[in-house]
Amino acid sequence: MKLSIAAAIGLLALTLTEAVKVSPLPIPTHIKWAKSGPIKVDNNFRITGTHHEILNKAYARTAKLIKKERWVPQIWEHPAPDFPEYPTFEKRGDYEEASYRHHNKKATLKTVKVSVRNLNADLQLGVDESYTLDITASGQGSIKAKTIWGALNGLQTLNQIITGDGRKGLQVEQPVEIRDSPKFSHRGIMFDTARNFIPIKALKRQIDGMSYTKLNMTKDAFSPREIYTQRDIINLVQYGRERGVRVYPEIDMPGHSSSGWLQVDAKAVTCADSWWDNDGWTHHTAVQPNPGQLDIAYEPTYKLIKNVYREVAKLFKDDFFHVGFDELHRFCYNYSTPSMDWFRANPQATYGDFAQLYLDKALPIFRDRRDRRLVMWEDVVTSADFAANKVPKDIVMQSWNKGLENIKTLTQQGYDVIVSSADFLYLDCGYGGWVSNDPRYNVMEPPVLPKAIQDAFDANPSDYQPTSFNFLGFGGSWCAPYKTWQRIYGYDFTKGLTKKEAKHVIGAESPLWAEQVDEHVLDYKVWPRAAALAENLWSGNRNAKGFKRITELTTRIYDFRERLLVREITAAPLTSKYCLKNPHNCDLHRNQTAWGK
Amino acid sequence: MKLSIAAAIGLLALTLTEAVKVSPLPIPTHIKWAKSGPIKVDNNFRITGTHHEILNKAYARTAKLIKKERWVPQIWEHPAPDFPEYPTFEKRGDYEEASYRHHNKKATLKTVKVSVRNLNADLQLGVDESYTLDITASGQGSIKAKTIWGALNGLQTLNQIITGDGRKGLQVEQPVEIRDSPKFSHRGIMFDTARNFIPIKALKRQIDGMSYTKLNMTKDAFSPREIYTQRDIINLVQYGRERGVRVYPEIDMPGHSSSGWLQVDAKAVTCADSWWDNDGWTHHTAVQPNPGQLDIAYEPTYKLIKNVYREVAKLFKDDFFHVGFDELHRFCYNYSTPSMDWFRANPQATYGDFAQLYLDKALPIFRDRRDRRLVMWEDVVTSADFAANKVPKDIVMQSWNKGLENIKTLTQQGYDVIVSSADFLYLDCGYGGWVSNDPRYNVMEPPVLPKAIQDAFDANPSDYQPTSFNFLGFGGSWCAPYKTWQRIYGYDFTKGLTKKEAKHVIGAESPLWAEQVDEHVLDYKVWPRAAALAENLWSGNRNAKGFKRITELTTRIYDFRERLLVREITAAPLTSKYCLKNPHNCDLHRNQTAWGK
Repeated sequence: MKLSIAAAIGLLALTLTEAVKVSPLPIPTHIKWAKSGPIKVDNNFRITGTHHEILNKAYARTAKLIKKERWVPQIWEHPAPDFPEYPTFEKRGDYEEASYRHHNKKATLKTVKVSVRNLNADLQLGVDESYTLDITASGQGSIKAKTIWGALNGLQTLNQIITGDGRKGLQVEQPVEIRDSPKFSHRGIMFDTARNFIPIKALKRQIDGMSYTKLNMTKDAFSPREIYTQRDIINLVQYGRERGVRVYPEIDMPGHSSSGWLQVDAKAVTCADSWWDNDGWTHHTAVQPNPGQLDIAYEPTYKLIKNVYREVAKLFKDDFFHVGFDELHRFCYNYSTPSMDWFRANPQATYGDFAQLYLDKALPIFRDRRDRRLVMWEDVVTSADFAANKVPKDIVMQSWNKGLENIKTLTQQGYDVIVSSADFLYLDCGYGGWVSNDPRYNVMEPPVLPKAIQDAFDANPSDYQPTSFNFLGFGGSWCAPYKTWQRIYGYDFTKGLTKKEAKHVIGAESPLWAEQVDEHVLDYKVWPRAAALAENLWSGNRNAKGFKRITELTTRIYDFRERLLVREITAAPLTSKYCLKNPHNCDLHRNQTAWGK
Repeated sequence: MKLSIAAAIGLLALTLTEAVKVSPLPIPTHIKWAKSGPIKVDNNFRITGTHHEILNKAYARTAKLIKKERWVPQIWEHPAPDFPEYPTFEKRGDYEEASYRHHNKKATLKTVKVSVRNLNADLQLGVDESYTLDITASGQGSIKAKTIWGALNGLQTLNQIITGDGRKGLQVEQPVEIRDSPKFSHRGIMFDTARNFIPIKALKRQIDGMSYTKLNMTKDAFSPREIYTQRDIINLVQYGRERGVRVYPEIDMPGHSSSGWLQVDAKAVTCADSWWDNDGWTHHTAVQPNPGQLDIAYEPTYKLIKNVYREVAKLFKDDFFHVGFDELHRFCYNYSTPSMDWFRANPQATYGDFAQLYLDKALPIFRDRRDRRLVMWEDVVTSADFAANKVPKDIVMQSWNKGLENIKTLTQQGYDVIVSSADFLYLDCGYGGWVSNDPRYNVMEPPVLPKAIQDAFDANPSDYQPTSFNFLGFGGSWCAPYKTWQRIYGYDFTKGLTKKEAKHVIGAESPLWAEQVDEHVLDYKVWPRAAALAENLWSGNRNAKGFKRITELTTRIYDFRERLLVREITAAPLTSKYCLKNPHNCDLHRNQTAWGK
């Protein structure tokens, strides 16, 4: 959205010239502002309409937040300045006193009426989340949706377009028509609550943020030892549901399975008391500490799995359930007598056959009801050691490795895919390592590049640069660098897919693995970056002309971060105050289409 | 400090076997625990001694915190486990119920007496900060120091060695003798309060943390436009002084000078309204936005500098004052008529001569009193363009570039140096970039390394690895990777110096540049990493045998982080709960001397 106040500088170059500052995030698929002037919003403004417990609560919550917040945009998109080589001083107009002055006295918005056609559609993958939102010049407001969940989205947009008028009143800047629906059905964040515990209160704050940005799914990876009560879980699921956010769990099996399981049946866990480290390969039993995997060939393992699964599954309402299967380590099974016996009894068997044994026994346990949809980490199909032979095609694969390559591999095979590519979407990267006694940091001077390598680089200009661990390199974070909001927003995760393959991509999730996360740093690691993910998944990352709209998101996300703070979500600052206050002055490139199409 | 409870596992291999869990951070230079058993600390325990306003406040503050906190260590050093290839389950002793049981009933510590010899020694660089601390078996406690500032350090150590006994009481684990003094005089953190504003309250929290870790210096880089009142500054300086923390300012001149200066005399600032970006080199006028430098050849500039300097200088008590001089950009002066006239009038002159012109005029202004000690960024001596010819040798150089190389260069020339090497000590690195419209993030697949380069790498094993911007590379953060506490602690910044040169290193400062920092994320970006800096500067990074004591700091800093949380400093979590609870189980290497000497 471009702003017309900077009349002197290049307005003619703009194709979209809506005279509004406010710009909802995620931006709606279709939004059309009129030009007849602002509509006053009555101080006793109400939201009414179709009655339903969830809707009634949402009406009240939205109206309350609008009245409390009275948000005046802190920053909005300006055209980029066009500095001459020897510029004279150019005043751009004082945006502290902008177009919030003259209300159209005739029109006052007193009520927004919400109508929902079908109250029975459940909050599950693929439910209709569309809505329309209209504010007319005469002050009529309406939201229409096919489902409760669409209406909730409409209310979030309404919340964002009613702003403070700078004088204690409320307004909508211009009459507006919005027709909106999401590009992808599955739009989520994964919280790891096993590595460090995250209290329910902090998770609720994340659900709030997700509902503001129309993200609809949160997954909590947890270990049975953690101390959420059943009541906590039921409460959290309900909290999400009231905000249109699905909550479903992952129990990682059979890898990464130790502490909790040990306390129920120590024999079902193998190699828990081994050593994970990297300097003794004859001891090495895990990709990361702590070691411990469920013993695939030990029959009572499946009784244990059944008990744990049933206890957890009954607490969640979602069809989805994530049953893990990442980073299984073969040498861990050297510690298991039953598993070694199985290999002795099946001398032709591969580890893939061994994984298949697990699937054949475990999957029937997980298919506990008709609509159950299981999710697994892609490793079950792509891992070098443990790729199982006959993974059912109805299992949703969550892809974290090798970006586009693995998405292609999986969709080609007919799997539905949730994209969580580490190189783009992992929120925990770039903070250095969390393992101890790691001498790789202990380097005082940059190593000198061998001459042959330096010569090769000099002769072959390349995107690659030689870096070392400590000098511009990854510094202990296996998935470095830190994924900026630009990186997340720019990810074209269906690139290179056929139409058929692309249909298999049901959405994406940004994982936040929690080795270096707890409630104290949770908010700023998630926000405002998750808002960039949200828009990429809701309405995409390109403008009407097909260009990546990174510069348009810049002001939108800067403003949104300030708004999150007011909503008590401690989002991280993205730039200096100067850059926030002066759109484009901190652009690396003046060319506003540098990101291309 | 090793712990004796794990009796079964390798105790004989330990040379230090003090039966205490508590381990102050920074660890004192000399600490000797006795073995006669714990000393009860009376509930009405008091600290008394030499009277002085600052001391009296510190006595009360320390006693209050000890009684409120009753800290029970969450984790402490264990010997590393020695797993066999096929381990059996090995129980290590339950450290929840450790040696906090039996008090030596005879001895109760009721009073710690503090005596200070010289109340007049001011808090300035090089003041005696040593102290001794003794708790005897009979329950006598004393702290002796030559100065107030040494006594404050002793009180911090006292605070750390009196712990909760796990039953609501207080104790000292064993009688102890401590003789302690710092390795370096200048131990600081630099807060940038110009890029984003940081409120006084948040800065006070940092001073608290610094006093806990015996850091003694904070520098605030600020721009005149920011809104600290004079009263705020005076208050902050006093707050630091009462805690033994020197506070001194930087006003960056003549580079990075725009906003504030413009409002006083716009003509004294050149190129403020130019374009900084990288895609138009004929426009490029600054290393980062926003552009603007003080006009060196414009005579009224010096009147302006004088006014600003005097107004600021009178608020601070420290001899030190930082007058900037980093990242001066030559093309900015193309925008200045007086400067271009000067070059025309001096056709032989280099930019070094131009910088000298600035120094000749500005330095006399800054030398406003006899004990004044000026600090400048090393650029004034090392920059390619602007190295001035005759920088006086009494100016302290703050070194940020090229690590050991520049420290050598500067000390060789006889300058005192504050070490702030970006590759080791910058706290703001690794969070991606903060400039906008940067299409370098927009890469979907890792570039393929040209064959010649790949072949050269294959043939030349090297510490260097080929990485690209988005794939294990620096990802927009110019000083990536993120500097972990291990990196900061391991830095041997006097390596390769002669004895004479080493004496010129007066200490170090970790800068926190604030493009992506404000009060909301300040604590976790500084803490607990600054504690690693503190110990490196106070008692070094090596144990009695000369090995880098990284594994010993690991448990200490994990516990200290938890303690900072209780003290309402939101320090970042360093690892998972499992790793925190199980020392060495998350070591990358089992070899406990992998860091070497």
